[in-house]
Amino acid sequence: MKQYLIHDEWKVIEDRFHPEYNEITESIFSLGNGRMGQRANFEESYSGKTLQGNYVAGVYYPDKTRVGWWKNGYPEYFAKVLNAANWIGIDLELDGIKVDLHQATIHDFYRELNMKEGYLLRRCEISLSNGKRLLIQSIRFNSMADDESGAICFQVTPINFSGEIHISAFIDGDVKNKDSNYQEKFWEEVKVHAWENRSCVWSKTKKSNFEVMTGQEVQIFQNGQKLDINPSYELKEKYSALHYQLDIKQNETLSIYKYAVNLSSENHASHSFEQVLLDYLQRISQKGFEKMLQEQANAWAEKWKINDIIIEGDVAAQQGIRFNIFQLNQTYTGKDDRLNIGPKGFTGEKYGGSTYWDTEAYCIPFYLSTAPSHVAKNLLIYRWKQLDKAIENAEKLGFSQGAALYPMVTMNGEECHNEWEITFEEIHRNGAIAYAIKDYVQYTDDKKHLVDYGWDVLLAIARFWKQRVNWSENLQKYVILGVTGPNEYENNANNNWYTNYLAAWCLSYVQEVYQEIKNLFPEDSKLKFIQSQFDEQELTDFEEIASNMYYPRDEKRGIYLQQDGFLDKVIAPVDQIPANQRPIHQHWSWDRILRSCYIKQADVLQGMYFFEPHFSQEEISRNYNFYEPLTVHESSLSPCVHSILAAKLGKEEKSYEFYTRAARLDLDDYNNDTEDGCHITSMAGTWMSIIKGFAGQSVENNLLHLAPFLPKQWKSYRFKIHFRNSHLDVWVKQEGVVIYNLTTNPVELLIHGKKHSIEPNASILV
Amino acid sequence: MKQYLIHDEWKVIEDRFHPEYNEITESIFSLGNGRMGQRANFEESYSGKTLQGNYVAGVYYPDKTRVGWWKNGYPEYFAKVLNAANWIGIDLELDGIKVDLHQATIHDFYRELNMKEGYLLRRCEISLSNGKRLLIQSIRFNSMADDESGAICFQVTPINFSGEIHISAFIDGDVKNKDSNYQEKFWEEVKVHAWENRSCVWSKTKKSNFEVMTGQEVQIFQNGQKLDINPSYELKEKYSALHYQLDIKQNETLSIYKYAVNLSSENHASHSFEQVLLDYLQRISQKGFEKMLQEQANAWAEKWKINDIIIEGDVAAQQGIRFNIFQLNQTYTGKDDRLNIGPKGFTGEKYGGSTYWDTEAYCIPFYLSTAPSHVAKNLLIYRWKQLDKAIENAEKLGFSQGAALYPMVTMNGEECHNEWEITFEEIHRNGAIAYAIKDYVQYTDDKKHLVDYGWDVLLAIARFWKQRVNWSENLQKYVILGVTGPNEYENNANNNWYTNYLAAWCLSYVQEVYQEIKNLFPEDSKLKFIQSQFDEQELTDFEEIASNMYYPRDEKRGIYLQQDGFLDKVIAPVDQIPANQRPIHQHWSWDRILRSCYIKQADVLQGMYFFEPHFSQEEISRNYNFYEPLTVHESSLSPCVHSILAAKLGKEEKSYEFYTRAARLDLDDYNNDTEDGCHITSMAGTWMSIIKGFAGQSVENNLLHLAPFLPKQWKSYRFKIHFRNSHLDVWVKQEGVVIYNLTTNPVELLIHGKKHSIEPNASILV
Repeated sequence: MKQYLIHDEWKVIEDRFHPEYNEITESIFSLGNGRMGQRANFEESYSGKTLQGNYVAGVYYPDKTRVGWWKNGYPEYFAKVLNAANWIGIDLELDGIKVDLHQATIHDFYRELNMKEGYLLRRCEISLSNGKRLLIQSIRFNSMADDESGAICFQVTPINFSGEIHISAFIDGDVKNKDSNYQEKFWEEVKVHAWENRSCVWSKTKKSNFEVMTGQEVQIFQNGQKLDINPSYELKEKYSALHYQLDIKQNETLSIYKYAVNLSSENHASHSFEQVLLDYLQRISQKGFEKMLQEQANAWAEKWKINDIIIEGDVAAQQGIRFNIFQLNQTYTGKDDRLNIGPKGFTGEKYGGSTYWDTEAYCIPFYLSTAPSHVAKNLLIYRWKQLDKAIENAEKLGFSQGAALYPMVTMNGEECHNEWEITFEEIHRNGAIAYAIKDYVQYTDDKKHLVDYGWDVLLAIARFWKQRVNWSENLQKYVILGVTGPNEYENNANNNWYTNYLAAWCLSYVQEVYQEIKNLFPEDSKLKFIQSQFDEQELTDFEEIASNMYYPRDEKRGIYLQQDGFLDKVIAPVDQIPANQRPIHQHWSWDRILRSCYIKQADVLQGMYFFEPHFSQEEISRNYNFYEPLTVHESSLSPCVHSILAAKLGKEEKSYEFYTRAARLDLDDYNNDTEDGCHITSMAGTWMSIIKGFAGQSVENNLLHLAPFLPKQWKSYRFKIHFRNSHLDVWVKQEGVVIYNLTTNPVELLIHGKKHSIEPNASILV
Repeated sequence: MKQYLIHDEWKVIEDRFHPEYNEITESIFSLGNGRMGQRANFEESYSGKTLQGNYVAGVYYPDKTRVGWWKNGYPEYFAKVLNAANWIGIDLELDGIKVDLHQATIHDFYRELNMKEGYLLRRCEISLSNGKRLLIQSIRFNSMADDESGAICFQVTPINFSGEIHISAFIDGDVKNKDSNYQEKFWEEVKVHAWENRSCVWSKTKKSNFEVMTGQEVQIFQNGQKLDINPSYELKEKYSALHYQLDIKQNETLSIYKYAVNLSSENHASHSFEQVLLDYLQRISQKGFEKMLQEQANAWAEKWKINDIIIEGDVAAQQGIRFNIFQLNQTYTGKDDRLNIGPKGFTGEKYGGSTYWDTEAYCIPFYLSTAPSHVAKNLLIYRWKQLDKAIENAEKLGFSQGAALYPMVTMNGEECHNEWEITFEEIHRNGAIAYAIKDYVQYTDDKKHLVDYGWDVLLAIARFWKQRVNWSENLQKYVILGVTGPNEYENNANNNWYTNYLAAWCLSYVQEVYQEIKNLFPEDSKLKFIQSQFDEQELTDFEEIASNMYYPRDEKRGIYLQQDGFLDKVIAPVDQIPANQRPIHQHWSWDRILRSCYIKQADVLQGMYFFEPHFSQEEISRNYNFYEPLTVHESSLSPCVHSILAAKLGKEEKSYEFYTRAARLDLDDYNNDTEDGCHITSMAGTWMSIIKGFAGQSVENNLLHLAPFLPKQWKSYRFKIHFRNSHLDVWVKQEGVVIYNLTTNPVELLIHGKKHSIEPNASILV
């Protein structure tokens, strides 16, 4: 764990430069607006440890698969998030010496991620090798209001000299993905151009033919006066720069304003790029940096109004939860149903792809409770639009008749992953996609969604399960052989309880949805049944399988077995593993991990979390007490589920312990890998630990349920929540829970199992 | 299946050119002498389909591992058989036109692999684009007598013209492995040189620093007269050539003799390379081509004298078995305990590595029965010498205290393979290595081997099994979790019966060997026990595990289960798979293969073959009848084991059917992959089908056992066999079996379970 960042309620602060942690800081201080984003690289060149990263949402490259041993069915390509043109570049040169914090003497350094208003600020005072001392200040943001743009105010003040400065404001599109499989560059130049105080780089991805135009406009102010000077131009392959040679005076500040725009062929016809770019640059530069910054603060104020969780009495926890909420909002804004939530968001390129089951299992609950319903709905439509590809994917694996297997990792609906035990066998992802539909409808009551989109997806998933099970003569039950559950420390297991349970649930749920849409939307549903070539016999088959599914169980202990044969392992709690062998995935060979009883992340318990109302408290408790001690939590998605279950079981201390593990994962670089980027999807898990765990939020029988407790480390915490047409402000204090109804309808809800009504715009204390 | 090669008892013949099959022919007509070898490439350049291949035994390159997803414990490198300098090159040019069979008109073409005398012959008449017609004849061999050399007699006869010819006799060391992971070249030049009528290329491998010097001497004869001419020289990077400009006359034959030598730093200090090369070239060129060719025929006559199997009444079968025996003898001669039997021998580079469990399970029985005992012994010593590496390998996977896990694929003892389900989990290979020791001692009665070498290996293997099992509280037995058996169409299985049985046998056998060496070699064994830090308590532990091992079994069917849960699969015979989905590994995704009941190669039945005396005929029969119909035989190692078991069960037709599938696997390109090289190790399986199957050869109670039958397709078959100090000539005819004792001691043996004695140099008819 690293604790070099200053705790603050609204900011993340680095108060002196830590070059050894620079890549970590670059991840944590990343900026994004849902449409584009970037790591917190310096504007000027830096020869120290750095991982440059600029990303444009939805733009990817199909990198040729790299495997040791090819298996039939592997995808040819892995769609990767693309490292795109670097638009922040501002190089400074004095007397032929480049400003480079790795070479300079740093007298003072301060950097701040302002989460309240959504910008990155840096202030540093340095001396160059020739003794010249200068102050650099910059503020930068990716605009939420104009989400194809960003702006920088970059200021230089000479402290002990007057003299010449050379400024190069550049766009560098000649970038490479660190994780390129074959050390290949993914971009080709279409055009580079410079005119007046502007320049651009127009590039195109190889193979996928995405086009992106990145343009800049530069304005320079000296002593508050805009300078009327013409830059000289430098154009190279995939690179354009504006050069300025200026005199600067001791203690007089030079301000360089850089306005940048990223246009993607996903949103504009590329033939109109040049006109759109010019208009865009003119519009935002006329608006000006200060106004853009104010609009940015306003946009974030709007977000925080409905998203914020206020924690009193624990600054580290307050900073932690705000950081998680901030990053989730930077990554996905819900405007575009072609986008999703990459595991690293705009903070790094690792893992490629943008969409994992994390979206459905972890992120959708966050957006459902904290954003208007279209945000989560767009995530569901994303999958609906990719249904044809999921059917193709299943066909590659031998399925037919409209059965769909959604990919493990995807960009455009095609499978990207290539490790048989995951790609082909971690099929529970299909269940999470169905589960998210139920979750969405429960929260929003948008039943129309079921006929418009849900039915297609649910039927195709049910068809998959129907074909994927087989009848075991031996057990006289349906079994699911050869799977990997959420616990990826077991591969090719038979009858993974979670997968079997989820599959059976899908097969039941589709029957329920069938009845519902048939009753509620007789005309629309009739058309859907025809379009999906649906036959009522299918429902009978689904029912037959769902009610005869095999569930491995140990009667003696009263627990479900994670999979067949689990009890043949040596069962010993995690605390018996020597500390120097943790995390086991870094110390043990794969076979040793597989045959051990150790669990990477919630598996049986993931099922108990999903389907909590199906199980008695005692049953959950027995399973929790058996499996949690065997869990190494080596996935960032693990602690949150355990935190929630511990809360439900009244293990408040334990619940808090898991929460803290999740909340500051990146801020404290808990897993030693934040340098690759932040764990964006698991941030939703942190949010869930508080809202679903401490506050006990869930939906049962069409009512919002809360069962809050206050961790004893906190004075109070407060959050808002969307549920159907209501919007509640919940404040959990020592003296009780105050719930304020923000809407104009009366709201009924269950608190600790007891029904309460709250009048519009009024509060109750429970 | 391709049937373009002519059936002949002693030759493989291609009587017209099949350019579309050229890479297949190149594999089949490969030459080798145990020390070096090569594919049957043409001497002159060929612009059509060709895979050039020249190999020097023991010289490899550690190619950086390529994986999609790294797992802890994977090896950094994959040691690859190296494609080495091409020494056969003879280019011809007439009027600026290069002779190239892909460009020329071919009037007549004949090529022959003469297995009796060990050479490759080609005769072809072609016309060039300018109408000039010429006859090319070549004979080439890799000398068995001088096994660092080869020689070529290459003859050109102008048919319809007289004129100038340009000859370039070259060595090209600038070659690349087709399977290079990163498109890298593995060789660096040390020196190229040409002098008098000789030239050489001296190269060094990157990283592994093997040095190889390849030299040539050229003599040219016209009308039977040696020409006294000086070549001009061409030296390029890793390339040297001798150029000759000559006049040739219509119908007069020009003969180019090329003597070549391959020296490796494995056998010579590289500082002496130049002197050794010169001496070697002088010696063989003075000996002359004809004499070398005669010595080659003599060496092969010696081999055939003890190796041959004569089949009467079936030319295809006769050719098939001789081809298999020929290739096995070309690949491994047993002279060098640092060498082993690569899966492709000297016929291709695929699979890399040289040593798989194939050596112990398939090849050792061949060499044991057909060669002096030192040949098989050297293969055992090879493993003994690599024991330290096997212990290191086990340590990487978390084992300790001298436990050894031999690698799945290796060159120098280090693991090369990198696919967790094989590398880490296909651990039954350890058992085959122990089994081969037992096999060797049974055949040779060389008990001294047990104390000198066997003990070390057996103890280290037993220590591995002891640590690899775990006690199942649930089953109250020892279990082995997470393995891949010989049937690689199951991965990460629990309690693979074969592995469990073999492990328990190893644990018992080491106890037996302990008693034996303690009694027979009290002094030597005492020292060994100290050296191996052996403690008698270990034997108690071994016994405890061996006698409490868990064996999955279905009592109803009276069969052992391939692994836990096998009967939860859909059990349906192979013939229910549609023909267009075979072989399944080319049509089904890996998960589908895994959860199916289909078996790649003998698994339970491999155990029944190894330990046949442990099981009743009925038990073998029940298991055979259950598993064989589920077996797709998609490994070249599969049919032979089934052929043997079918023979034992009296299913003579079935046994013959499996044999034919194995015998002409490469000659008829049965699996569509002979172009990559021949299936060398499975050739031993073909031999086993006849000797262990049809002839029923085995050792029981220290006696050689035979139980021959004559396939009804054959008139008779005849083979020789080594057993301890005896050497028998066995002739299986319709009227009975004639056995001739070739040694000077009386021999006792069991035929069809009945004891017979044969006097020295006398025969009996049974």
